Amino acid sequence: MSRVKPSIAKGTRDFSPEILNRRNFLKSHLVDIFESFGFQPIETPSFERSETLLGKYGEEGDRLIFKILNSGDKVRNADLEALQKGALAQFSNSLSQKALRYDLTVPFARYVAQYQNDIQFPFRRYQIQNVWRADRPQHGRFQEFLQCDADVVGEKSLWQEIEGILIYDRVFSKLGLKGIQIQLNHRKILAGIAQCIGVESQLIDFTVALDKLSKIGEQGVIEELKKKGFSMDSLSRLQPFLSLEGDFETQLSAVAKILESFDDALEGIDELRFIFDQLKRQSLKAVSISLDITLARGLNYYTGLILEVIPPGEIKMGSIGGGGRYDHLTDLFGLKNTSGFGISFGFDRIYLVMEELDLFPSSLNQNTQLLFLNFGRETAEVCFETLTKLRDQQLPSEIYPVAAKLKKQLNYADQRSIPHVVILGPEEFQNGIFILKEMKTGKQSEYSISEMLQVLGQLS
Amino acid sequence: MSRVKPSIAKGTRDFSPEILNRRNFLKSHLVDIFESFGFQPIETPSFERSETLLGKYGEEGDRLIFKILNSGDKVRNADLEALQKGALAQFSNSLSQKALRYDLTVPFARYVAQYQNDIQFPFRRYQIQNVWRADRPQHGRFQEFLQCDADVVGEKSLWQEIEGILIYDRVFSKLGLKGIQIQLNHRKILAGIAQCIGVESQLIDFTVALDKLSKIGEQGVIEELKKKGFSMDSLSRLQPFLSLEGDFETQLSAVAKILESFDDALEGIDELRFIFDQLKRQSLKAVSISLDITLARGLNYYTGLILEVIPPGEIKMGSIGGGGRYDHLTDLFGLKNTSGFGISFGFDRIYLVMEELDLFPSSLNQNTQLLFLNFGRETAEVCFETLTKLRDQQLPSEIYPVAAKLKKQLNYADQRSIPHVVILGPEEFQNGIFILKEMKTGKQSEYSISEMLQVLGQLS
Repeated sequence: MSRVKPSIAKGTRDFSPEILNRRNFLKSHLVDIFESFGFQPIETPSFERSETLLGKYGEEGDRLIFKILNSGDKVRNADLEALQKGALAQFSNSLSQKALRYDLTVPFARYVAQYQNDIQFPFRRYQIQNVWRADRPQHGRFQEFLQCDADVVGEKSLWQEIEGILIYDRVFSKLGLKGIQIQLNHRKILAGIAQCIGVESQLIDFTVALDKLSKIGEQGVIEELKKKGFSMDSLSRLQPFLSLEGDFETQLSAVAKILESFDDALEGIDELRFIFDQLKRQSLKAVSISLDITLARGLNYYTGLILEVIPPGEIKMGSIGGGGRYDHLTDLFGLKNTSGFGISFGFDRIYLVMEELDLFPSSLNQNTQLLFLNFGRETAEVCFETLTKLRDQQLPSEIYPVAAKLKKQLNYADQRSIPHVVILGPEEFQNGIFILKEMKTGKQSEYSISEMLQVLGQLS
Repeated sequence: MSRVKPSIAKGTRDFSPEILNRRNFLKSHLVDIFESFGFQPIETPSFERSETLLGKYGEEGDRLIFKILNSGDKVRNADLEALQKGALAQFSNSLSQKALRYDLTVPFARYVAQYQNDIQFPFRRYQIQNVWRADRPQHGRFQEFLQCDADVVGEKSLWQEIEGILIYDRVFSKLGLKGIQIQLNHRKILAGIAQCIGVESQLIDFTVALDKLSKIGEQGVIEELKKKGFSMDSLSRLQPFLSLEGDFETQLSAVAKILESFDDALEGIDELRFIFDQLKRQSLKAVSISLDITLARGLNYYTGLILEVIPPGEIKMGSIGGGGRYDHLTDLFGLKNTSGFGISFGFDRIYLVMEELDLFPSSLNQNTQLLFLNFGRETAEVCFETLTKLRDQQLPSEIYPVAAKLKKQLNYADQRSIPHVVILGPEEFQNGIFILKEMKTGKQSEYSISEMLQVLGQLS
């Protein structure tokens, strides 16, 4: 075995106890809120059969899916002809039959279709698992990261959209994260605009360009659409949609006016209005709702409301969550008429926002509370007996494993921020006492060995 | 996009809410005990650089490691010559630079070496994460499964071995799982036996064969050793070790007698004696300790105590845990003199044992407690207002999302085992009342709408 310089793969992370305790804090908040809304957890395997995943996320998505190399003899089936032709995807597929999960939504759709006879619809599930993407790693973008989704499938009801937005509000307010903006739009409005400006046959080109508005500005979007062959007439008819002003209801009324002859778009507008009206009746604590009719979201499976969650203004970061209504996702797996609505939390980004705003409690470390110093076998045996009983009382406690120098042992307690240590050396033992030292203040108190369990038990 | 029959990859599993709630119950018990012993959590990435993993688990292990296919253009580097020669491992390695975690121990050793300057030694960590093995799937053996490890590195102290065994005892007794047997042995005793019978140059062949004793019997072991070229003389000198009788101390004394001229072996025997003596002073609740000097354990990195955990006699299943002392594991990553001791829980097998013995509480489901039936927008709005407040009070509750037939809605409550439903139809609304129905008994009670929050709040 050769010696290897220890390092991890690009785009992956180790989590130390300190970071993991914070991540678990965040996770348990999400779980609590999901469950208060009646959602239940499921988990799906880390890898799926390739045909379950490939072709579901567009060409770009397919490229970013991590494929698992066939084991053993199966690599003999390598399609060398494809390699020679430069058909690399085909070559890769000849070497692989499984792939790592790219998101939680497609495996969930597969799950719903597979167990449709066992599931009670409407099915409310949440899922908190890693996903993997072969993206170029950069700050805040990883190849392995945690996704947290809540979806409900089986009914078309706008109450579900409203609940989704309330979940965001409750999670963020419980985390102390205020000033979140949730931008809403509706796929039927986007389709209506495309119809209205005469580009309905190029709906995807249109929404892809529009989605970049916040990044490249109005002029950038116009340029991109020109390149895609959009006519000057279409572009000038697009203008009014790019310069809407006023609050949610004002903008929505303006859009309704321009699109008054497009029935589908009006349906989308009515849905947005209902959702907004109901949310007004709720006391939203952490989020505010805005309309952004240029919001498109990358994924093509959305059919109704789409939403994106924007962090507080002072944070320079993209969206920290998103979701929408999809009517046909389970169709892919043979289950029709099963509309769903889902939301997703960008766990790693929310973690970074929380760090930046210093919102994690400082006392998260489920740390050892008590350390018995070690002065050799005889006294260690006495300590160990009490130690076991304290652990049974759920007091996280340790004994230093060897009779090292006192300074080394105390330094360990100090570095690990262990608040109390017990000193029971040969001298104390002879006198029938032990010393309890408070590390922060240095204060030492003496007690009889016979009352050890009772005294220390009060620390828990 | 083509339609795919929904199914999962061989050897993987979906977890429904019911199963996941049980798994989480088991996991939280492990976490509680680990933390009471002063262990803290870490996590490492799902995939590591190939050189971190390959060559650490023997030839068989290497074959079972899942490799991740390089993305995009990199597959052009396929070593076709190796493929032609039939050097399949070499061919595979030319297509892959990353591999899925095979166990938690090697990534942990990598972690310790990598962060040696930030870690406080002795470092006590636990880790609960999936591992992946390209094993042939069969009953109770999966390609993706959960491992739960607790290790402490940085000191050589037998108190750590004792604590490891106590952790098993505490976990199993808290789970209500009695009658567990922990078999102990020591690598130095095995080495001593090999020396004693004159086969120290074939130590690995010897221990591999010995490890199969419980599977293939004494005669089987002898046959295998003959095939490996062991002499009749060696085999006859092995005999006394295979026919030890009596309790732990009797057997240990007998072994000590035969090995009295082998200093290393006597050191191992002394260590076992110390551990056993200390454990006698503890009140073990769920486990009993036995000596099995034929226990070898597959992994080669162990250097001291080794142990294996055997389920209660009535359960037909292999070991449900194991561990041992390793002195040189972090050497592989350039960190010397860092002895460690670790234990591992076979999560999936323990789960099966718990199921078989019916030890999971029946009330594990964090289920919805209250369902508001839906009779259309007007009354749903009233319900929804209360619903939000109940959720804020952590009462898991739902509203049926559409005004479906009453029978369908009640059937949903029934199938989901939701204990209470609220009925607020147009008629009740007109009379200013609502009905609270207890699903189990069918009992219905009427209350004024004005006291809705107060009445329902008492359900939480």
